[in-house]
This record gives sequence, structure tokens and C-alpha cells, in this order.
Amino acid sequence: MVSPLHQKLGSKLAGLIRAGTFPCGARFPSIRHTSREHRVSISTVMEAYRHLEDEGLIVAKPRSGYYVAPPKITADRFPTTITKSSKPIRIERASIFETVMATQGDPAYVPFSTAAPDDGIVPHSKLAAITREVMRKHGSEALRYTPPLGRRELRAALSRRLFDTGLKVAPDEIVTTQGGTEALLLALRATAQSGDLVAVETPSYFGILHLVRDLGLRVIEIPADPRGGLVVGALESALKKHRIAACVVQPHFQNPIGSVMPEANKKALAALADEYGFTIIEDDVYGDLGHDGSRQPSIANYGERVIHLGSVSKTIAPGLRVGWLVPGAHLDEIRRLKCIQCPWNGTLSELVVAGFLDAGGYDRHLRRIRGLYAAQCARTRDAVLRHFPDWTRVNQPAGGFVLWVEMPDGFDSEGFTRAALDRGISISPGTIFSASCGLNHCFRLSCGFAFGDRTLEAIATLGKLAPHYLP
Amino acid sequence: MVSPLHQKLGSKLAGLIRAGTFPCGARFPSIRHTSREHRVSISTVMEAYRHLEDEGLIVAKPRSGYYVAPPKITADRFPTTITKSSKPIRIERASIFETVMATQGDPAYVPFSTAAPDDGIVPHSKLAAITREVMRKHGSEALRYTPPLGRRELRAALSRRLFDTGLKVAPDEIVTTQGGTEALLLALRATAQSGDLVAVETPSYFGILHLVRDLGLRVIEIPADPRGGLVVGALESALKKHRIAACVVQPHFQNPIGSVMPEANKKALAALADEYGFTIIEDDVYGDLGHDGSRQPSIANYGERVIHLGSVSKTIAPGLRVGWLVPGAHLDEIRRLKCIQCPWNGTLSELVVAGFLDAGGYDRHLRRIRGLYAAQCARTRDAVLRHFPDWTRVNQPAGGFVLWVEMPDGFDSEGFTRAALDRGISISPGTIFSASCGLNHCFRLSCGFAFGDRTLEAIATLGKLAPHYLP
Repeated sequence: MVSPLHQKLGSKLAGLIRAGTFPCGARFPSIRHTSREHRVSISTVMEAYRHLEDEGLIVAKPRSGYYVAPPKITADRFPTTITKSSKPIRIERASIFETVMATQGDPAYVPFSTAAPDDGIVPHSKLAAITREVMRKHGSEALRYTPPLGRRELRAALSRRLFDTGLKVAPDEIVTTQGGTEALLLALRATAQSGDLVAVETPSYFGILHLVRDLGLRVIEIPADPRGGLVVGALESALKKHRIAACVVQPHFQNPIGSVMPEANKKALAALADEYGFTIIEDDVYGDLGHDGSRQPSIANYGERVIHLGSVSKTIAPGLRVGWLVPGAHLDEIRRLKCIQCPWNGTLSELVVAGFLDAGGYDRHLRRIRGLYAAQCARTRDAVLRHFPDWTRVNQPAGGFVLWVEMPDGFDSEGFTRAALDRGISISPGTIFSASCGLNHCFRLSCGFAFGDRTLEAIATLGKLAPHYLP
Repeated sequence: MVSPLHQKLGSKLAGLIRAGTFPCGARFPSIRHTSREHRVSISTVMEAYRHLEDEGLIVAKPRSGYYVAPPKITADRFPTTITKSSKPIRIERASIFETVMATQGDPAYVPFSTAAPDDGIVPHSKLAAITREVMRKHGSEALRYTPPLGRRELRAALSRRLFDTGLKVAPDEIVTTQGGTEALLLALRATAQSGDLVAVETPSYFGILHLVRDLGLRVIEIPADPRGGLVVGALESALKKHRIAACVVQPHFQNPIGSVMPEANKKALAALADEYGFTIIEDDVYGDLGHDGSRQPSIANYGERVIHLGSVSKTIAPGLRVGWLVPGAHLDEIRRLKCIQCPWNGTLSELVVAGFLDAGGYDRHLRRIRGLYAAQCARTRDAVLRHFPDWTRVNQPAGGFVLWVEMPDGFDSEGFTRAALDRGISISPGTIFSASCGLNHCFRLSCGFAFGDRTLEAIATLGKLAPHYLP
């Protein structure tokens, strides 16, 4: 049976949308234009377009024409919360980790595994100009040892920026570090001793898990929901059974699930910290990257037992190695530890970041990169939904730049990752985000770099590969 | 009784020399000039000058005139080797340490406690020019994450520089770090586990002791001689009784005693490492600063069990935070540890240092600063010998820029330090260089900064204070 002309046209156009010829948000050819170019009647095109609208592929905007729609977000396409009975464990390290890491910075791979800003995000010219100015203005001082807490210019600039998160801290209540990882290490060391139990989110940024493991700490995995982040009730259940020294949480645009903790959950978490006497280590490295420009408040607004930390690696430039801690009650201890293990920071870097935060147009820069990150996430997500099988679930982050993709139970993301690497595509399997090497049915896609044909093609390749890794 | 005219003149001139009016090495007024200015006869001046020569205050150079002599160095003015029975201990931390550290970078203090290059040492203009060039040439790449071992440009430049120490290492056998302290930490972590025994020199740079203590290691103190460094025989005795995991040694211009290990001792140490199966951690941060320009060979020339490390903090600029390790057999382990605790370095800093080492005139720069450091050491030493009591002993370093001052047994350098701080002079008491808080009869004077009236006056003040801290 021959299908009617409008069906043929409709499926041809749907194919072009799925292939990325007409990407999400782009203007779709007008009815008149399609009629002329494809030599079909206006009514046939109208019929075909109505089908495309019904399928959710295009939308009509009054007095403007047709546009390619974002993929339909039905609630059941969002990743689920992984719940399991939590008990204290020693962290296992996924053996595939080194294999994935070896591809970092290698231009031979499409870098979906690199949670770093692309060159187009980093404000290079501005930083070059500030660097020149700092070298001129500060002279040799820009090359001396930093004082124990870090350069005051930077701490003062940070105290002004942190005001937006609701934190009211003086410059001398901030300790600067050589990047966020050092800040995390200091926070963990100040709050937990070897053998102590630390609560971590599942899934969690692998750098947190590696540090915790390296310090000889045990962990208890607390589920994190792709919408609301840390499941506070699950933490409470764990606290009833175990003494927990610290809980590491990324409340805003969590890596890898992109979740945001609602205010009520932050309050509940802070209350638990008071009740059970543990420290919340709030890793807020993505906090400035809300796609709508709003700034989420720090958990420290709701309680005293919080160490807040951040870095410029995702917002300004990772190569500067500038991070910080607001240690609260742990100020003296963190200062002491900092003086032992890494007493000084990069002076030039600290002065450059201070200059950029204070007078370099950081807010304008943030507006620009939030838009870029949002667009890169949306286009990658769009491509995943179009090219992966229907059973694929993917989050829709409100900030940051990582996508968390969940496949049916039994999917082998490590095997899938190896196959992807063979095809020049680097992704991060779910196991590296789990203290117990679980989550093998999930993987993370970073969208820190510009979306283009190469990315789209890579997603299409991954989408075709995926079904082979079902059980 | 009235003393003869030539004696009056002689003691007046001697006073001016001791006060620094005519500093060590300076041309002394000619006989004719002094005769005219002081309205005394030529023969009286000649008689006075002969007395000054006899006292070792001035020397005559043929066809050139008189010069202010360096203070007489008699063998018994050199500090002694502290020998004591060594047994494994847990490191104690001198409580005065924080007090001294709090003065770092504070312009209110004469900075004899700061082992850092002065602004006049740091090649600011050159580094500013290289920074501009790096930002221009590398663009955003200069602000990306570094790869796991550090930027290849820096490792390549270091492999060429290390050739002068006799080390033949490929760039990929070098791991760069954020300064020397991180390199030390990695070397210790790769070779010793909590509870293990590590041999340290006595006295030793306090940063080494703090790291060792922080890692939960025990130490055994091995005497270091102000001339020949680590007393290898004492280490051998300790090895016969104890299993030692690693021995940390600064073979060249040791901080704080300025010692240099003779080749025979290096060979003997390397042989012991083979025989007893421990690792030598060779901290060579001062190695490029030999005052005569010669480069001492690494201990790694004499054996396999060596981790060599260095930094640019004393030679180029501390604020850049660039250090490195040649881990030898420990390459994989150090790489693994580095990836966990501090996976990235400052990219811009690494590229700037690579540029300076390769094409920035590092050798010319070294010639200049070796001369400055040598002169600053000599003038400070000179002032100490002139203004301190006769029982004061002080080393004469052949490189680097630290002086080690030894007072009679029972001298209280901590009390002396507190009194000096009250007078705006910051020095480092001996106790902070000892794992057992011993060496209270010694102190360290750093000469990293330009010598001038303020320094001279400070030394004179210290010289007058010193006798009050005898038992």
C-alpha cells in the first residue's frame, strides 16, 4: 500500500529534524516555502505539518511561523532516584576510571567525559588584560608567597560575591586554596579522621569519592534525586543507625545529576546536622551557573554546621587553580592544615581572579556563559532524546553543564563506554560516580564545549550503539 | 694615661668598620686621604693601619690600596655537629612556630625568618614579558586544566635543566607539582605508610617535619654537619637497629645549615639505600644556588633508590607555585596519588616557567642572583661576627641564603626570638628545625633580602640582646 503524499512528506521532514538538519529551537521552513520546494500542494504540507505538531516535533508561533520544538519532556523520561539500603562501606574504585581519564584533553576524542569549560567559555582576552595590569600594578609582589589565608584582595572580592548566596562572611573568615579539590580535601580532613564515616550522595562527583577513599574514611551512600538532590529522609534513617562525621553535598546543579535542593530540604539537612552533630560540606562549584541567572542560597543560611566551598574552575578558568573555603567553626583547624600541606597559593592567579571578580565584568561574563551552557545542555539533551531508544531517561538541568542518562536496569555502561572510546567518543560510565561501583546502567555526558556537527554525530553513534549493551 | 694618637685613630676606625660604615669588601680610605682628613701625620696613619691589619679588619692589596677584610674565619667559629643517640620518636611541634609565622610578609619586621627571595631577586620584568607572550601564543589553552603529569613544555625544559645535575630523565619521567611542598608530600606518601619510620636530618627544614608529622609517620633524627651535611655513619648505625622507609635529605646548601654533601657521602648514602632497601628523598630546592656557580650532582647519579625534587620558589618566584619530582621507580604511584589529591597544576605558571627556563635567560639570571645571595650572606655573616659575642658560631654557606648561628649550650633561642620580635626583628629559633624541639641554643637567619642599614642595625640589636639569653 502506498502511503499518502502528506505522510511521506511528514516522515521525511521528521527524519531531517531527528538528524539535526533543523535543530531544536530553529525556525522551520514556512508552508509556502515547503510547498514550492517540494512541489506539493499547500494543503498537503499543512496536513504534514499538523502531524509533525501532533508528534511534538514542531510548534506554531502566532504571526511568526513554525519552529522546531524541544523534545517532549514527559515526567517518565526523567532519571529515577536510585534507592537502596545504605550501609557503611569502603569505597571501591572503578577500574575503567584511568581509561576514561587518559582521554582528557586528547583532541582525538569527542570530550563528553570532560566536565570543564571549553575555550569559548573562558574569558581569555579579559584575563590577559587583567594579568598585564596586575603585573604592572603589583610588580614583584605579584610573585611573592601568599600570606597564610591567601591574598586579601581575593578574599575581599569573594566575601562580596558570597553575599549573593546569603553568606555574610568577612574576608578573614575565608581561606583560599589551589582549586576546589584542595578545598574539599581540607574540609574532609578537618571534619573526619581515618576510619570515620562520611555520607556521600549517590551518584556523586568521583573526585569526592577518591579523596574520601584516600583519607581512609568509610562512606555511607545516600540517594540523590535528579530533581531535588540529596534525599534528606534517607540520610536521617542512616543517622539513626550510624555516627556520621560529615556529609558531602553539592546542593546546586549537582555533578553528575544536575539536581537542586529545595529550600525545605536544605533547612531539614541543617536541622539534622544540629541534631546529630555532623558537618555539612557544601561543595558549590556549580552554584553560579543557574541557567536562569538566579543564585541559590547556601545551606549555611539555615545552620551553623556548614563548610562552604567553591572554585573558579567551571566559571572563569580551571588553569588558574583558585578555590576557597568558608570554614565556619573549623577556621583554625583548616588554617592549620593548610599551613602544613600546601602553605601557599598562586599569587598571580589570586590577584587576577580578584581583579576579574571586582572590576572585570564577572556578572556580564556569567550571563554570557550561563546562556552558552544552557544552550549546549539543551541541544545535547535534545539530540539524546531524538537518537537514543525511547527507554532512555535524561535529566534537564537548571544549571551547570552535565547530563545524566539512565538506561534500563542491566545496561552495561562500562562496556558501552569502551565501545564509545573505540569510536573516538569519551563518556563517563555511571560506576565512577558510585562508591560501590554501582550505577552501571547510567552514564554522564558533559556539555562544557560547543555543540556542533561532530557532537551531534557522536550522539547519533552512541544512540545506535546503546541497544547492544542491554542485558 | 693618654693613649698614643695612632691607637686613638685605630680604635675609631675599627669602630666604623664594626658599625658597617665601611662594609666587608669595601675599599678603605687611603693613608694619604685619612692623614689629610684627620689632620694626623702619614706615619701615625700607617701605624694605625698596621694595627687594623693585625686585627684582621683590613687587608692591603698590592697596587690597589686597603680593603675591609671579611671577618676572620677560624675553624672554631663554625657551628658544630649535634650528635646524640638517635631513637624513633613522634615529632613534637614547637609552640613558637605560629608566632614566628605570623610575622611573614609583615613589613613591620626585619624578615630574617623568611627563607624567600626578595623582590630584587625575582626577575619581574622578564616574567611579565613571558606571561604576555604565553597568553598571546597559547590563548585559552594557557587557562585550561593541565594534563595529569603537568604541561609537557615544562617537563621538557626541566629534563634539559636536570641534565646539569647528572640526571638523564625524559619529560614523561618528571611529574610537576604546585610547589616544592606538594612534591615532598607526594614523595613521602609514596614511600611511607602511617606508623613507618622516616630518617630526617637534624637540623631539618621545618616544612619537612610538619609533613612527616601530619602523615602519622615516626622519625629518627640523624645529625647533619654544617660542612658535610647528613652524617652517613650515624644513619648506618640507625639502620642496623631500625627498619627505615625513607630518608629525607637536602644535599646541597641545606636549610638551615647550608651544608653540602661530598660526593663520597652521596655514594655511601646511595649504597646504604640499596643495602637496606629504603628510599632517599632528595630535596634539592637550593641546588641551583651555589655561590661559585657550580652545580652539585644529584644523589640519583649513585643509585636507583632516589626520588629527586625541586622548585622555582628560591630561584625564580615563590608565587608561581611550580615544583617537580623525578620519582624514578615510584612514578606510577606518585602519578596515582597526584591524580587523587591535587590533579591539576597552574597552567599559566607552568608555561611561564617553561618559557623562562628555555629562552628567558635563566642562566644569566642565576649568575646575577647567586652573586646577590652570596653578598647578602657574607655581609650578614660579617655583621654577626662583628656584633655578636666571641662565643658565637656561624656557618659560611657555599650556596643558598641561610645562616645557622650556634650559641653556647643552654642559650634560649626561643626567649631570644620573642625578645627580637618585640624589637621588630623576626628570626627562626633552632627548636623549629628539630623533630624533638631541641637545638634551642641555635637560630637561623635568612638572607634572601637586600642587606642595608636596617639589617645591620637589627644584627647589632640582636648582638646586644644575645648575652641575656645565656643560662
